[in-house]
Amino acid sequence: MKSFALLGAPKQLWPDDLKEQFLKANRTGDLVIGVDRGSLLLQEMGIKVDVAEGDFDSLKRNELAVIEKNVADIRYSNPEKDWTDAELAIRCAFLDYRVSHLTIFGATGGRLDHFLSNLFMVLKPEFNQFTEKITLIDQQNSIKFYNVGKHLVKRQLGYQYFGVATLNKVLNLNINGAKYNLAKFSSANPVSFSSNEFLPEKDTFELSCAKGVVAVIQSKDINRFQNI
Amino acid sequence: MKSFALLGAPKQLWPDDLKEQFLKANRTGDLVIGVDRGSLLLQEMGIKVDVAEGDFDSLKRNELAVIEKNVADIRYSNPEKDWTDAELAIRCAFLDYRVSHLTIFGATGGRLDHFLSNLFMVLKPEFNQFTEKITLIDQQNSIKFYNVGKHLVKRQLGYQYFGVATLNKVLNLNINGAKYNLAKFSSANPVSFSSNEFLPEKDTFELSCAKGVVAVIQSKDINRFQNI
Repeated sequence: MKSFALLGAPKQLWPDDLKEQFLKANRTGDLVIGVDRGSLLLQEMGIKVDVAEGDFDSLKRNELAVIEKNVADIRYSNPEKDWTDAELAIRCAFLDYRVSHLTIFGATGGRLDHFLSNLFMVLKPEFNQFTEKITLIDQQNSIKFYNVGKHLVKRQLGYQYFGVATLNKVLNLNINGAKYNLAKFSSANPVSFSSNEFLPEKDTFELSCAKGVVAVIQSKDINRFQNI
Repeated sequence: MKSFALLGAPKQLWPDDLKEQFLKANRTGDLVIGVDRGSLLLQEMGIKVDVAEGDFDSLKRNELAVIEKNVADIRYSNPEKDWTDAELAIRCAFLDYRVSHLTIFGATGGRLDHFLSNLFMVLKPEFNQFTEKITLIDQQNSIKFYNVGKHLVKRQLGYQYFGVATLNKVLNLNINGAKYNLAKFSSANPVSFSSNEFLPEKDTFELSCAKGVVAVIQSKDINRFQNI
């Protein structure tokens, strides 16, 4: 079973097919998690929410009542909690429901300290085992994470570019079979190699590293959002 | 002399007073830098651009002609260049024009590999001397960077929240005089402590660290963008 979660970052950054992706999850029996207002927004789109969690602080009494009426598994978290919304979703999906993968929407944009929390959470020791099973998706980006080892990264449909961002100290990072390759790169500091591309004849590139966690960000231009 | 640069990230993420800030820079004789299409967008708003730089690849012939007619200092960069747009702006501002501060707009959102490049660039040894003289601003966020030492961080007008994100290995990070304080925090990995707040009676908090580079992100909710 896979899982799909909606957090509270700006609606304007949702991918165009967000509703279809959640409806498909309903059809295929995958787990749908709504965090805070995300639970309500999903229901308003006619999507069945399997788990709702959050402090629900921003919801009106009648809005919370809608969630409480329709969602079987509701988890009330402490507003001054130890876990962020995305971390709650991870814990629920992997620890309680034993899913194989978690796709998170609504984790980017808006307040950027939140986005950075969502980006850096895979570095925490307790979540590191799930690093390669998490995808963050918004209107223009799909972010996947890779631990030490050799990986074949596949081009995702509809994305023109990719960037490789190291999130902590990396040793011996290699990119092969892409427009711009990289050999034996090591750095104590995070760095983002942006605007790379898959080769026209290939739908994959090879990524490897001997130490560190790396994010691969596949992205696309969107005319209504992008100036250049 | 201060400086203000416009990069190419989504217009929708500009702060509401972007035009006023650049017009003020014109009036006070501060340096205005347009990078790529940013140069054109500034001119379309009636702002005098002092320096235009970029590969101008995305511009039409007549659009580039407008820039070439009106801007005294134009720098053509290589499309497959060693420096990102933001790094070009930093080099121009600090190395060539010896400005005291650089505020960058259009550096967040859109393709997130670009945003991460813009966030992590202050970690590069050649830019580290400018770390504390750079501010990134968008619709909801103002990001400043701090090196080792003790800092008094001031509340900026209009922002409710702040987050503290460590960008590399930190030792002995302290937050004092805020809603949520932090004592002697050390981590090899980046982490973002989000949703902190200034105390009601105070317009500052103390930040110190013995090793590492830290971003302080002041942020606000915007109804038309934020779900929660």
